[in-house]
Amino acid sequence: MALKIARKRLDPAIRSELILDEALRLFAERHFSVVTVRDIADACAINVGLIYYYFENKEQLVHRVLAHAIEQFQARYNADQDLNPAQQLVAYLTWHIPIASMLTRMVKLMADYSASAVRDPTTDNLIRNFYKKEQTDLEDLLTRGINERVFPPLNVAAVARSISLQLDGIFYASPSRGDNRIPEDIADLCHILETLQIKK
Amino acid sequence: MALKIARKRLDPAIRSELILDEALRLFAERHFSVVTVRDIADACAINVGLIYYYFENKEQLVHRVLAHAIEQFQARYNADQDLNPAQQLVAYLTWHIPIASMLTRMVKLMADYSASAVRDPTTDNLIRNFYKKEQTDLEDLLTRGINERVFPPLNVAAVARSISLQLDGIFYASPSRGDNRIPEDIADLCHILETLQIKK
Repeated sequence: MALKIARKRLDPAIRSELILDEALRLFAERHFSVVTVRDIADACAINVGLIYYYFENKEQLVHRVLAHAIEQFQARYNADQDLNPAQQLVAYLTWHIPIASMLTRMVKLMADYSASAVRDPTTDNLIRNFYKKEQTDLEDLLTRGINERVFPPLNVAAVARSISLQLDGIFYASPSRGDNRIPEDIADLCHILETLQIKK
Repeated sequence: MALKIARKRLDPAIRSELILDEALRLFAERHFSVVTVRDIADACAINVGLIYYYFENKEQLVHRVLAHAIEQFQARYNADQDLNPAQQLVAYLTWHIPIASMLTRMVKLMADYSASAVRDPTTDNLIRNFYKKEQTDLEDLLTRGINERVFPPLNVAAVARSISLQLDGIFYASPSRGDNRIPEDIADLCHILETLQIKK
């Protein structure tokens, strides 16, 4: 009984975050289309009605799960302005390591949603903007690096795309490879970018 | 009626290939765990009994679908022995383009299977060997390229891994990106490898 009361007193923001995290875990392991709101409630040990208090329906929940994952990735990364653009790029890539499990689940949900016949314009936009922002952020860092003579002249769009694809390879394929090499693969990617730099 | 007779006379090898192709399409769009043998029979416009004539059960079907996809990828690529190792590497990468749709589905099934709680040792082996062979083939081409002075000395294992991850990024993430850039991304990857070559 005490536990039940404690549960009810959870801050709504924390409660909804817990639901979103648990939903992402289930969506990634199975497929968002087969996970029911009841499955999520059971996994959170809460009443299914409480989920409907926070989320209108399953479609909105899928959208919010993805939005929450993308926010966790984007909002909590703050570049240290004392670093040069190449060091900021390395810091940006390295930031993927502590949140690797969450990112692996996030891209699984993106892949499942995108390969499915389900279409929700707000979710489509979310994914499109995620990739657009990644490409822009990488291009900005590379361009600043070239301007500050840290990098030699590069095809900025192509190098940014290549880094982005390499990151996708690391995260999307990690469960298939099953070799637990995300930190090493990110380190190797950082190393490739270091070899691009102008030696001083 | 005529059509029905024609169907029954299909060569068993062709028939089972058609079933495997259709199953891969359904597995990739939904999730192998929710696609039933009946769904596959319906999609092939055949009786469900015919599928059980060719395949013991669903688990074996999943395994055979993946094995068939990997075979299509591996067995039909033959390197032209007149090409130097760098050209063979480009030919190998370019070979991914005409079979891009099949490869996109193949990696989706690998990802779904690997992220799921289902474990089948023969399927685990299939995926492990697929990645092992890719890494070995890439390392062999790079090593021969270095020996023939087409490539400068390189960290062969790291470059092979990087190419492999980039290919994964291209194919696993293509539906999420939704920008239909597989041929361009492969061309860019070939271009990166060309810039690695020793200029003569």
